[in-house]
Amino acid sequence: MKIDGTPFRSIWVDETDHWSVRIIDQTRLPWALDLVRITTMEAMAHAIRAMLVRGAPLIGAAAAYGVALAMRHDGSDATLKTAMAVLGGTRPTAINLRWALARMEKRLKPLGGHARGDAAYKEAALICDEDVATNEAIGDHGLPLIAARANGGRRVNVLTHCNAGWLATVDWGTALAPIYKAHDAGIDVHVWVDETRPRNQGASLTAWELGKHGVPHTVIADNAGGHLMQRGDVDLVIVGTDRVTRTGDVANKIGTYLKALAARDNGVPFWVALPSSTIDWTISDGLSDIPIEERAGTEVTTMTGRALDGSIATIRIVPKDSAAANPAFDVTPARLVSGLITEKGLCGADAQALQDIFGDR
Amino acid sequence: MKIDGTPFRSIWVDETDHWSVRIIDQTRLPWALDLVRITTMEAMAHAIRAMLVRGAPLIGAAAAYGVALAMRHDGSDATLKTAMAVLGGTRPTAINLRWALARMEKRLKPLGGHARGDAAYKEAALICDEDVATNEAIGDHGLPLIAARANGGRRVNVLTHCNAGWLATVDWGTALAPIYKAHDAGIDVHVWVDETRPRNQGASLTAWELGKHGVPHTVIADNAGGHLMQRGDVDLVIVGTDRVTRTGDVANKIGTYLKALAARDNGVPFWVALPSSTIDWTISDGLSDIPIEERAGTEVTTMTGRALDGSIATIRIVPKDSAAANPAFDVTPARLVSGLITEKGLCGADAQALQDIFGDR
Repeated sequence: MKIDGTPFRSIWVDETDHWSVRIIDQTRLPWALDLVRITTMEAMAHAIRAMLVRGAPLIGAAAAYGVALAMRHDGSDATLKTAMAVLGGTRPTAINLRWALARMEKRLKPLGGHARGDAAYKEAALICDEDVATNEAIGDHGLPLIAARANGGRRVNVLTHCNAGWLATVDWGTALAPIYKAHDAGIDVHVWVDETRPRNQGASLTAWELGKHGVPHTVIADNAGGHLMQRGDVDLVIVGTDRVTRTGDVANKIGTYLKALAARDNGVPFWVALPSSTIDWTISDGLSDIPIEERAGTEVTTMTGRALDGSIATIRIVPKDSAAANPAFDVTPARLVSGLITEKGLCGADAQALQDIFGDR
Repeated sequence: MKIDGTPFRSIWVDETDHWSVRIIDQTRLPWALDLVRITTMEAMAHAIRAMLVRGAPLIGAAAAYGVALAMRHDGSDATLKTAMAVLGGTRPTAINLRWALARMEKRLKPLGGHARGDAAYKEAALICDEDVATNEAIGDHGLPLIAARANGGRRVNVLTHCNAGWLATVDWGTALAPIYKAHDAGIDVHVWVDETRPRNQGASLTAWELGKHGVPHTVIADNAGGHLMQRGDVDLVIVGTDRVTRTGDVANKIGTYLKALAARDNGVPFWVALPSSTIDWTISDGLSDIPIEERAGTEVTTMTGRALDGSIATIRIVPKDSAAANPAFDVTPARLVSGLITEKGLCGADAQALQDIFGDR
């Protein structure tokens, strides 16, 4: 999408040297747009580990380019093996990371060492382009949900949680793709952006990317969404997801479940946008089968932002002797989900509907 | 309650000069315990306006002592009138403020100017003592709800939102009173403390007062409560309230409604603790009849805490061009409330039950 009028992706091959890789350092957003140049596999591994890039699809693309950077320097089996191990260990739980690395290995293994560099860059580019196409398709399929509520040019209010935008993918995003499509089509769409404590991906990333593309939006505390729905100020909710069971249960950033409950209580449609690669066909009970990552309490007890003097500062907001707990995700049962927005179309959040659209797995 | 073993109230007459009034500057908590000495009505008005003291019952007590400070200097009708006007204008929407001032005026008006000083201090002390007795009664009536879940000495997990503790009253608090009673009775009670964005009263005030009294607690992002209930980690929810309709609808800090929905979805009891003065007998539909204060967006876009160097710093956490909305309260419909904990006992959240316990208003 655009940053102040200029189209961007979240990862790309450098325009000048055609082999180093550029990423946006997302830990610096929204305060600085740092286009970091990555020249080694190790630097890419660090960028993933330190969350300069984050979001499952983007992590996969970044890992693929990490392999390409390794192969450019040395196309040996030993180097390929090392790259797989190092990159694979950066974010052990990310499904897309493992998927992208396996795909790169499958493509490169049969080739001679001299041919692996070029092939790796081509495969990584293909992964990126496919991600963009998938997300754009999600946008196209989700667009009618917004358009249908814009009768007579009225404003459509969409609430979203966390960041499932173009910054989390290569472009378009998942939950935000239909919103960008609607905005670009001239529909008056306005987004309620949940702050998304404790890491504030809504306040820092979603608000930033919507603002840079020109989409009207308002940041709210995570506490406010239910009240806004009670008052009729939310037309629909669209969120992303980290994992969907074969039965339609949805794991997503902590707090998503509370919004789904409020949507149900107020008759507000609650949609989940995802590429089908997010579906875990091996599990059927989200609450018992999806392990929930418990992250550091410091994410709750501290907050980082811009101080009055322009510097980036971290402050503590909890008494020093108080403990904090930080479950990072929750599970929204399928019964609360109006439907799924996938690259193949809209789909009910249930086993039969998923099987009908994606075939029997 | 206690601060590191020493019993405290949130407001008291100075131990040395017996006429100036001490308060805790709550804007400095949890980083510093500043016991501010207030010597004039104007200083007390400032303390209320600038929220050095907050919480409806405490505001009422502070205003009463504000009148006393004015009467000590000059017991004239003109000074009494001025005190009523200045103090009454500090927090125009606070019900307890108006109630306390009306009570002081009724007590003082009939007296001669020379007698008003002593009488004002006595009446203010009475208001404080009555508040303490009311809250302690709430604690006694709520205690069995916790004790019943402590079978065999097991830990009882209570979730609370915002600060309805002794800092919001003269002592004991409302929602926290049953928790203090349980803790002091030797029950292993642990509190999940909602951070309570955007003003963070949970992270800063509730965590602080529980910690200082020695009550085990864990601060969580407001997003986490639903997940904890899904996992069976919450035995009951107890919150305070700013206003209750005659039908049992509950206005409380923004986000309360989301916790009530999650409690209902998971079969967790959801109790609301209040002095009966919080009941607004004139209204019956909380959603349509209770106006919701919209506060400054800067409460959402900025956050204050302790920097690494020990200084208190304010940082911005939202892009500079992004708007923010900040509804301060929401309404939890009576259908989601398990019951009310009042100074007269437990009570259903419905018109008949309220009438039965408090008589026909």
